[in-house]
Amino acid sequence: MGRQGIRTLVVVGVGLIGGSFALALKRAGLVERVIGVDRSADNLRCAQELGVVDVACDALALAAAEADLVLLATPVGQMAACLSAMAPTLPPHALITDVGSTKGNVVRIMRETLPDRLARCVPAHPIAGSELSGAAAAQYGLYENRDVVLTPMAETDPSAVETLAALWRACGAHIAVLDPDEHDRVFAAVSHLPHLLAFSYVNLVADRDNAERCLDFASTGFRDFTRIAGSSPEMWRDVALANRPALLAALHDYRAELDRLIGEVEGEDGTALTNRFGRARQVRTAWYQKFLRK
Amino acid sequence: MGRQGIRTLVVVGVGLIGGSFALALKRAGLVERVIGVDRSADNLRCAQELGVVDVACDALALAAAEADLVLLATPVGQMAACLSAMAPTLPPHALITDVGSTKGNVVRIMRETLPDRLARCVPAHPIAGSELSGAAAAQYGLYENRDVVLTPMAETDPSAVETLAALWRACGAHIAVLDPDEHDRVFAAVSHLPHLLAFSYVNLVADRDNAERCLDFASTGFRDFTRIAGSSPEMWRDVALANRPALLAALHDYRAELDRLIGEVEGEDGTALTNRFGRARQVRTAWYQKFLRK
Repeated sequence: MGRQGIRTLVVVGVGLIGGSFALALKRAGLVERVIGVDRSADNLRCAQELGVVDVACDALALAAAEADLVLLATPVGQMAACLSAMAPTLPPHALITDVGSTKGNVVRIMRETLPDRLARCVPAHPIAGSELSGAAAAQYGLYENRDVVLTPMAETDPSAVETLAALWRACGAHIAVLDPDEHDRVFAAVSHLPHLLAFSYVNLVADRDNAERCLDFASTGFRDFTRIAGSSPEMWRDVALANRPALLAALHDYRAELDRLIGEVEGEDGTALTNRFGRARQVRTAWYQKFLRK
Repeated sequence: MGRQGIRTLVVVGVGLIGGSFALALKRAGLVERVIGVDRSADNLRCAQELGVVDVACDALALAAAEADLVLLATPVGQMAACLSAMAPTLPPHALITDVGSTKGNVVRIMRETLPDRLARCVPAHPIAGSELSGAAAAQYGLYENRDVVLTPMAETDPSAVETLAALWRACGAHIAVLDPDEHDRVFAAVSHLPHLLAFSYVNLVADRDNAERCLDFASTGFRDFTRIAGSSPEMWRDVALANRPALLAALHDYRAELDRLIGEVEGEDGTALTNRFGRARQVRTAWYQKFLRK
């Protein structure tokens, strides 16, 4: 292995996210061996057949004993149990990270399950995904030009952050470092809130007396506005509960914004509506120009 | 002209929508002459140079005197003045239609300005558009496979509806007929409400203390959810005011839906959240499969 490389990567939950990380590190020549652990024996066999993992293992403690780096890519509900099972056998130098879309809860779980190893814990959130899932969906290029946010704790050793950042950069990702709470506030606003608003909007249409006719006439605006309402209910329940304080603050802010808008429509205040819509258009258009150049 | 054709079409407001209707009828050989009227002399000259209109006219009364069909494609705020100016010279047989995205208000304007001609009035709403505008954006194929909703009044002569329907079908459109109020309720739900929700959401993000950081991390979910927040503020102010009752009902329903969701997040009711999100996903996924086959 080169200067930046590691010998053994343990991926717990070998799906699109964990599997693509393993593949990208293999292509970069930065990992010698990938051990996969997964609740689904079928998925794990598939991961091995596709070369996403080299070794399939159904015992977390056994895999942990070999680890230089552990990537937790399970649903958040299973994370505490996995870390508890791995804690006794993890070598002292092993680095522990995850891929969850909320970070305050991961910090809490790490503090509870690995209190003596926080220097080697680097919570992380790769901003990537697709509507596909499972090891069969893993791909080398998933992280090319995507952001990965690292949210180290006060206890995290800076060298652990640097090691993980170098591995993610080798996958093609851009690294950002945020405080875990700030991460959760940012993603409550730009990701979690719009998902919940889109789910709610589709439910509202579905509950109407004239729902069928409405859906008959729904077109491209509806299509794009509701795309994220096709996301996994279980995943978004977990996110909503895990990021509850920041999300509730954003939901209450949105309700206040909606009340102001309703007041202006009720009061037929055309000037206020034009200003409100005009500001949104200006911000969205400027954002999109920047996004396209990324 | 063939059985279905007309001699003179007068397009008031020669932009994307009105210009594309003129071009499509010309290609179908169903109109002999198109007279264009427009507040912008530059736009009208452009329409003439591009062959969208044959004759440019800056006097509504003069154009009206020649009309077999009048297509009103102005902003809704100018519609009453245009119809009043045309009323004295319109031939008795002339058919009058529009392209507005709200219909109850158009019915009211027609009743006020053309009380003796309601048999020949067919309010209409072609479900088409693009982010482009002006005569230069007019295109033959804009209405291919798109819906056009006709909303005749009680007084409208069925033969007038049939004549207009045949012309729109010749443009490639599919015809639906709705009661004007039902039209406004349907489009309040599937088009007007999501636009207002998207504008409000972008304003909420823009007002945050950490707005810049939020926009830095906004990605594809944000992009699609906010696409319609890039729409024209003036047009959407007009729509919000014109469709005020139906839109307010939808806004209040959405707020109630949001309150239920907030209650479930506050109460950490994971089962209720999973059901809520799951229902939305099921409805959205089924809708999208149908939409793709259209």
